[in-house]
Amino acid sequence: MGAISVKSKHLLGLKGMDRQDIADILDRAAYWERQPKVSDALRGKFVANTFFENSTRTRFSFEMAEKRLGAEVLNFSAAESSVQKGESIYDTMRTLESIGIDAAVIRLKPTGVLEELAGKLNVALVNAGDGNNEHPTQALLDLYTMRKHFGEIKGLTVSIIGDIKHSRVARSNLWGLTAMGANVAFCAPDTMQAPELEHYAPFVTMDEALQADIVMMLRVQLERHDKGLIRSAEDYREQYGLTAERAARMKPHAIIMHPAPVNRGVEIDDELVECGRSKIFTQMEHGVPIRMAVIERVLTS
Amino acid sequence: MGAISVKSKHLLGLKGMDRQDIADILDRAAYWERQPKVSDALRGKFVANTFFENSTRTRFSFEMAEKRLGAEVLNFSAAESSVQKGESIYDTMRTLESIGIDAAVIRLKPTGVLEELAGKLNVALVNAGDGNNEHPTQALLDLYTMRKHFGEIKGLTVSIIGDIKHSRVARSNLWGLTAMGANVAFCAPDTMQAPELEHYAPFVTMDEALQADIVMMLRVQLERHDKGLIRSAEDYREQYGLTAERAARMKPHAIIMHPAPVNRGVEIDDELVECGRSKIFTQMEHGVPIRMAVIERVLTS
Amino acid sequence: MGAISVKSKHLLGLKGMDRQDIADILDRAAYWERQPKVSDALRGKFVANTFFENSTRTRFSFEMAEKRLGAEVLNFSAAESSVQKGESIYDTMRTLESIGIDAAVIRLKPTGVLEELAGKLNVALVNAGDGNNEHPTQALLDLYTMRKHFGEIKGLTVSIIGDIKHSRVARSNLWGLTAMGANVAFCAPDTMQAPELEHYAPFVTMDEALQADIVMMLRVQLERHDKGLIRSAEDYREQYGLTAERAARMKPHAIIMHPAPVNRGVEIDDELVECGRSKIFTQMEHGVPIRMAVIERVLTS
Repeated sequence: MGAISVKSKHLLGLKGMDRQDIADILDRAAYWERQPKVSDALRGKFVANTFFENSTRTRFSFEMAEKRLGAEVLNFSAAESSVQKGESIYDTMRTLESIGIDAAVIRLKPTGVLEELAGKLNVALVNAGDGNNEHPTQALLDLYTMRKHFGEIKGLTVSIIGDIKHSRVARSNLWGLTAMGANVAFCAPDTMQAPELEHYAPFVTMDEALQADIVMMLRVQLERHDKGLIRSAEDYREQYGLTAERAARMKPHAIIMHPAPVNRGVEIDDELVECGRSKIFTQMEHGVPIRMAVIERVLTS
Repeated sequence: MGAISVKSKHLLGLKGMDRQDIADILDRAAYWERQPKVSDALRGKFVANTFFENSTRTRFSFEMAEKRLGAEVLNFSAAESSVQKGESIYDTMRTLESIGIDAAVIRLKPTGVLEELAGKLNVALVNAGDGNNEHPTQALLDLYTMRKHFGEIKGLTVSIIGDIKHSRVARSNLWGLTAMGANVAFCAPDTMQAPELEHYAPFVTMDEALQADIVMMLRVQLERHDKGLIRSAEDYREQYGLTAERAARMKPHAIIMHPAPVNRGVEIDDELVECGRSKIFTQMEHGVPIRMAVIERVLTS
Repeated sequence: MGAISVKSKHLLGLKGMDRQDIADILDRAAYWERQPKVSDALRGKFVANTFFENSTRTRFSFEMAEKRLGAEVLNFSAAESSVQKGESIYDTMRTLESIGIDAAVIRLKPTGVLEELAGKLNVALVNAGDGNNEHPTQALLDLYTMRKHFGEIKGLTVSIIGDIKHSRVARSNLWGLTAMGANVAFCAPDTMQAPELEHYAPFVTMDEALQADIVMMLRVQLERHDKGLIRSAEDYREQYGLTAERAARMKPHAIIMHPAPVNRGVEIDDELVECGRSKIFTQMEHGVPIRMAVIERVLTS
């Protein structure tokens, strides 16, 4: 575990990354945001999107980033793959390396596998979400959105509300925000708290959480209902959802964020998703330049 | 409902489109049919194929059109998407818009959703089939095929035979053919007729239908058998299929059309699919230049 | 059946191909292996990967080859296709031809369909595996790997071990190796032997098989267990697996090959997969230049 510098050939997580490295990525994303749609920066490079866990939005965002950089793109999704025949993730990635890809964006379910993979492969890896560990490009686009809106991240207060225990978005944001000097607090039902994170950020009540500069809601995995983690969608909304009533109690300048996809009417009320203080679709827009900056970085380091 | 001009940034349907707009698209398709394979017309533009309902042939035809125009292509199919997690079509399309696509080709099951989507999105939409409402590019390629074969569409008689009730191909052809001055008749079993269309075109017998200049067969959805709409494939063929015997009774100059994929031996006899008067694979060839014309149009309007 | 020259517009199999044709492909692959990543050789050409049977590694390898040649690529997998609606392979391929593709890489389950397809289509076909008949590009990359390692294929002894009966890899290697002057022997449990091949290569014991210059292991289809073809994975390993103990008895200069994906600990011990004498990932590397040579050849013949 620990410090994996983005200056290395991989981007596995934000834990241990220093403020300057993060700022460099945000600056480079700002550059890419201003450029015309397609560049030749990575012409002749091959990037594979290897999703062992499906995701439309993240895969599309990466694919757009790769194509805007001029790279050739290969898409792999586990559903159609030999993984169904029991092939290991390592063997699949080793195969892609043998075939000649230069970088792989990877999403996978198990936690702790990625660092081992990175140690064994020569291909550059970008983590697109590994279990409940990290989702670094999501946190980077969140940081970018905050910096663009508030001018500076240092000193901001950020509440992250929802299933902290199972959230890689919460963890990557914690590491990234802390490195940049923001103050993070979590808010979650008892069954969704993460004791090992209490050392880094306090768990607060919903009323306290609403007083932050940024109120970041997490997606509720409604399927967890079966496991007794939540009683019902209505119940969750009532206790931990960002309702219109609660949003009205936020500070006047505060903004709403969410990694999407949203459960409208569960963790966030339908009418708030595209309200004036919501940055949800803005976050998605920022995903592309952030991922351009990250992929360029791992391929030119 | 009603007139959505192709001069607008979308192509949602042919209903209400005027003759000149349709003729412009057909003319432009004729231009593209003569060009070398790949152009730079849409270099740097991003087009997403968003199929909430799967289709090999239509998706491939659009993808070929997009790539021949020099556009970058992103493929989305619902089977592998967050839609499985309950994400709405609107949220998916809004995400794609945020990611920066310029146009989306969209196929979806529900009828009536597309106009609402078009009103909310800035991205240009091309309808690749929405429920039983419209499938405008299919009708345009059909019109193109007729015009190329007969020289002029005005005055042609066209019989459309099969499950009119559930057919978006029948509806788009009705609107397009009527605008161009052709005479349309329908032929269908009682359970597959559409009373709301009787105002626009008569329902005739099979023997009458065979006397048209164009005999257009529709695909039978054999799965409707379960719902009691047809008794059996054999029964359907006997009553409404284009058998070799019936084809022999068509006018000497008349042609056979079908949107494909065909059920060989059900709505059309196997030996007719590639016979001299069949235009079935010619229709597919024309799909590419038609879609080039349409995509170019929505992206340069 | 029989001689289909690669000089023709298709590559359906190695059976009947003469030594010079094979050597030409290997030479051209050596050329491509030395080139920078992307060329313009097939700029403006469209190649479809049509996999009626899924495969990650083979499809990726072909896609990489096509893109390195500068071709436009369309990916088709049966899982998402109209084939589910009962459309025939012929109609699907005929559709792709109508849409304007120049070549199709095709994998399909039934044996004997491919030659018939090739006779009916104008599009160039490259066999990526048809039932248990042939997998010619796999054998060509195997030949390439052997020639590169040993300098010459003529006179080499090659043991192919495993389920010969159901293996298209075994058959294509048999035809290719024999044409190049190598000596092939098979080794298989009784239930996995192929009497019709005994005329071309002897079936030998495991101890005899280990004395070859090349020990080529085949993937065990563990699902065949249900059919009584093997008793258990452990049992198979004990009798026909390349264990570390058996590998130690190979000739000092001998190499290990496997078409992958491997069942680690079944037909080959885990520790051997990336050992010094294993060429397994090297084979995969060679797949790309071989497929470049083959696709270029069918498109420029």
